[in-house]
Amino acid sequence: MATTLHVTDITASAVACCAPLVKEPMTQVDAEKVATTLKALADPARLRLLSIVAASQDQEACVCDLIEPIGLSQPTVSHHLRVLTQAGFLSRSKRGTWAYYRLQPDALAAVTTLLSI
Amino acid sequence: MATTLHVTDITASAVACCAPLVKEPMTQVDAEKVATTLKALADPARLRLLSIVAASQDQEACVCDLIEPIGLSQPTVSHHLRVLTQAGFLSRSKRGTWAYYRLQPDALAAVTTLLSI
Repeated sequence: MATTLHVTDITASAVACCAPLVKEPMTQVDAEKVATTLKALADPARLRLLSIVAASQDQEACVCDLIEPIGLSQPTVSHHLRVLTQAGFLSRSKRGTWAYYRLQPDALAAVTTLLSI
Repeated sequence: MATTLHVTDITASAVACCAPLVKEPMTQVDAEKVATTLKALADPARLRLLSIVAASQDQEACVCDLIEPIGLSQPTVSHHLRVLTQAGFLSRSKRGTWAYYRLQPDALAAVTTLLSI
């Protein structure tokens, strides 16, 4: 069995920085971190990619199965997947020819905690 | 007592469109709506404004009290408040000279539902 390495960017915990934003005024430093993370989500193609990966078996999908449903070129899909991985929403592992992406639920949970009322 | 009218844009329910994104692949139409709403949040100044309003008494604040803590010009602050209002996160009411902004918790709740795992 091939050894696989799941890679998640160090920015994964970016939104784990802060108390819920309704609780106390957010600092500029925290707001910049959170805005960067939310920008990674705020794109139609990335939201669709994330939802397809999340709805897949084991919340993991091969990049080869993501291109057709999104209807964008492979470089464009790879770019969007890289943004989601750098923001911590996906991890990436290489097996043979293809890269596989897995949902990182903790990153979504950190965002929902931040926005909770 | 002056009559006040709270104005919330019709896009307020934009993110109430969809099931949690981890449950099923999101359609392009839904993804575009959600991306628009998330873009309204994905800005440091807007996150800070939202958190200041949310942490204020009755979750409401006068624009006159928002300019100094943010450290931006009044037109810039007003622009950011308009974006948040159009996205449904704040409502706006005019009393005398000043506009007051109030948190709309349902809009944040819709986002957390969408991102819930």
